[in-house]
Amino acid sequence: MAQNCPTRQVIGRVGDKWSLLVLFALSTGTKRFSELRSEVQGISQKMLTQTLRTMERDGWVSRHVYATIPPKVEYTLTPLGESLEDSIAVVRRWAYTHMDEIVEAREAYDCRRE
Amino acid sequence: MAQNCPTRQVIGRVGDKWSLLVLFALSTGTKRFSELRSEVQGISQKMLTQTLRTMERDGWVSRHVYATIPPKVEYTLTPLGESLEDSIAVVRRWAYTHMDEIVEAREAYDCRRE
Repeated sequence: MAQNCPTRQVIGRVGDKWSLLVLFALSTGTKRFSELRSEVQGISQKMLTQTLRTMERDGWVSRHVYATIPPKVEYTLTPLGESLEDSIAVVRRWAYTHMDEIVEAREAYDCRRE
Repeated sequence: MAQNCPTRQVIGRVGDKWSLLVLFALSTGTKRFSELRSEVQGISQKMLTQTLRTMERDGWVSRHVYATIPPKVEYTLTPLGESLEDSIAVVRRWAYTHMDEIVEAREAYDCRRE
């Protein structure tokens, strides 16, 4: 896959750890910034802002601002985002299913290297 | 998903761009280091070495050294690696299918921001 291949760029985006975790958090419904911040442990305010902006630009997330005081902002998966989440869920299920095999492989690898 | 959740760690690994591209390159069969280096455009020697070592440790790739002079080293997906590649292929197909929608979303987003 050539570097400028658009699909490679999308896969690079899809492979972004924070996007995957925000996608997962939004899969259970619309969330506010603060809710996302607490649900996706370890993400900084700056990284969450940047991640949401990129996901909105890619058409995975819609951002709705309510003209309340102070303004309320909510994020929701778009149909495109939901379809991506469905395919990512396949990988997540793979991870759940094979977690033990990976842990065993790591232990065996580390033993061989001792 | 808590930070120390093992599945989150695996998803973080699976989301690693270079691992995804090496996985894709190996999905067409056993490869030597130099073949992988040329097929995965943009990856440095050091990054490929590190990525292969991590993938081997996670049990996705097997490394075989032939006692030739100079020694020949080949990398092959393990059954675990092949099963991961099958699930990643779902995401790759998603990217192929939705590429145009993403490009359109980006153009619309950029227009709104002008």
